[in-house]
Amino acid sequence: MTAFPFTISATDGAARTGAIETPRGAIRTPAFMPVGTAGTVKALYMDQVKDAGADIILGNTYHLMLRPGAERVHKLGGLHRFSGWPGPMLTDSGGFQVWSLASLRKMSEDGVQFSSHIDGSRHMLTPERSIEIQADLLGADISMQLDECTPFPCEKDEARASMELSLRWGKRSKAAFGERDGQNLFGIVQGSVYDDLRRESAERLIETGFDGYAVGGLAVGEGFETMCSVLDAVVPHLPGDRPRYLMGVGKPIDLVEAVARGIDMFDCVMPTRSGRHGQAWSDYGPVNLKNARFAEDVQPLDESLDCPASRDYSRAYLHHLVRSGEYLAAMLLSWHNIAYYQSLMARMRAAIAAGRFAEFRREFGARWESGEFE
Amino acid sequence: MTAFPFTISATDGAARTGAIETPRGAIRTPAFMPVGTAGTVKALYMDQVKDAGADIILGNTYHLMLRPGAERVHKLGGLHRFSGWPGPMLTDSGGFQVWSLASLRKMSEDGVQFSSHIDGSRHMLTPERSIEIQADLLGADISMQLDECTPFPCEKDEARASMELSLRWGKRSKAAFGERDGQNLFGIVQGSVYDDLRRESAERLIETGFDGYAVGGLAVGEGFETMCSVLDAVVPHLPGDRPRYLMGVGKPIDLVEAVARGIDMFDCVMPTRSGRHGQAWSDYGPVNLKNARFAEDVQPLDESLDCPASRDYSRAYLHHLVRSGEYLAAMLLSWHNIAYYQSLMARMRAAIAAGRFAEFRREFGARWESGEFE
Repeated sequence: MTAFPFTISATDGAARTGAIETPRGAIRTPAFMPVGTAGTVKALYMDQVKDAGADIILGNTYHLMLRPGAERVHKLGGLHRFSGWPGPMLTDSGGFQVWSLASLRKMSEDGVQFSSHIDGSRHMLTPERSIEIQADLLGADISMQLDECTPFPCEKDEARASMELSLRWGKRSKAAFGERDGQNLFGIVQGSVYDDLRRESAERLIETGFDGYAVGGLAVGEGFETMCSVLDAVVPHLPGDRPRYLMGVGKPIDLVEAVARGIDMFDCVMPTRSGRHGQAWSDYGPVNLKNARFAEDVQPLDESLDCPASRDYSRAYLHHLVRSGEYLAAMLLSWHNIAYYQSLMARMRAAIAAGRFAEFRREFGARWESGEFE
Repeated sequence: MTAFPFTISATDGAARTGAIETPRGAIRTPAFMPVGTAGTVKALYMDQVKDAGADIILGNTYHLMLRPGAERVHKLGGLHRFSGWPGPMLTDSGGFQVWSLASLRKMSEDGVQFSSHIDGSRHMLTPERSIEIQADLLGADISMQLDECTPFPCEKDEARASMELSLRWGKRSKAAFGERDGQNLFGIVQGSVYDDLRRESAERLIETGFDGYAVGGLAVGEGFETMCSVLDAVVPHLPGDRPRYLMGVGKPIDLVEAVARGIDMFDCVMPTRSGRHGQAWSDYGPVNLKNARFAEDVQPLDESLDCPASRDYSRAYLHHLVRSGEYLAAMLLSWHNIAYYQSLMARMRAAIAAGRFAEFRREFGARWESGEFE
């Protein structure tokens, strides 16, 4: 298989900035991928996602295989055409959501059998079927190996056994993926919070050989400090010339600290999910628009953002929409949040390129600590 | 008070087309006003409403007086600034929704006392308070007199008593409104399904004198034929040089038949409400996107419409979004429906201007009867 060219144009400490070149366009890194769960980034138009600065979005194999069905998406021209997102797309393997959403799971060496949370129908996900769905049927630009995600906390022997299974599934995923031009496959480091397991997982994944390396099994309740220490332990063991993807993370402060440790890619439902619950993200943390203090605040959310949702609507209006449960509340706050996240990535890329990332990180950390959204 | 100039540029039978000139822009008639209940046309951006061809939207006094409160909207610069709709805006009197949504109503000659459906708080709506809310606090371009809307069916003596009350409230509304430049006040014809009451209501309203005349109390269960026969009885008695507004109507076929009878303005929640329930409107009636026949239909909803929602998304994708309960389903279908309604008005205006409205009406009726959406 041919790995997408990944050019690192500048580094600053462990942080780096560059671009992954795919046939569907470049992904500027560090990159945040909005989550397009079921073929839509919730409450947003794809144009808004693009205009906010996103180069790549994520699709969920679990959701799409159940509805509308992977074969149906393929029949309709693949996920890009179906959803109207022409740029690069990464799909997860489906494993994480089988673990978090499906019922009656039955694990075996072969894969995982489960019941759909929608209609109870039985399905089987194996490394081979996951690759077929992602790469062949949905047409993902970047597919992820099937892995098992351990819960937190997790005993070490359980974490090791699970990691070993994920490594074997990684090999099978790679074999199923084969040699492809224009599509890439990423492996996933597991090992829970055990540094030696994480290191071993990384090393053995590299032996198998992937186009990029993800850190999985974090943001499952282990907390900020532990997440950072796992990254400290793992990232130095990942190849410097390949993209590093921290899965399912996170809050803005998590992104800054992970970029400082050398992470290149992120995905998280947080900006859109928060947006549906009346929260706007900022350098000062989450802002709850439902709060009475915004009832007569005529300021926009954040004039510095080049996004209509952030710039052209008063907080008083947003407060009213949230209180009234209006669709437009979710639409505007999700839009603002995606724009804010993309702007945060752009600011980090610029800071790294200018050799002032340490300063950016310090200043950001101070704002975050203060919590003083004005 | 100074009535907005209303220029009728062409007539065809009883149907007429023209424009009402307001300080905030022209309203091309026949006009359909999307309903912006609580300061937002549900699931749409105001730009989409405008670009779809709407010249004027409607705001609901009842909703806005309860949340965020009329005094608060005023403090925030009025409803136009608050909601981001710079064009003409009409507000209803609040009466209809007190009747349909509020609880513990207590009617008196003075007005109606009621409890908020949101928090149970007690409020009083009188003709004077309704005008204060609409014209002074919200800043409506067109205010409506407070009236009482009779239920259907309704005995004649009850209908007469209610009509008499509405006439008295009409006089008080006009007195409260006084002389204003740049704002108009419309009266409302009541009288249930009784032609003589309707006629009397119209004549006595005209004696009081309003800038425009609405037909209220329809679309409450009386059915299509009865609605048409009430219009047949009433419209000839309304002044030809003033706008005629049929309140709360309706389906596309209702609009065509009411325009044929000389109606100039409409409002209805139907396009947006249907959009939130998986329905798309067409010349052939409502189309339920949830239907399995659309699961693999790659056609757009209606390529003839200059609206991205109608043109750029496959029915298969819309079907998937509806089945998945995605926000984007409501967003796209509401958008399509508003664009379809506006396009229908534009087609009627063009047909009247070209002297071929009778033909348009016949062809439309045939399509509607066939129900054959392809």
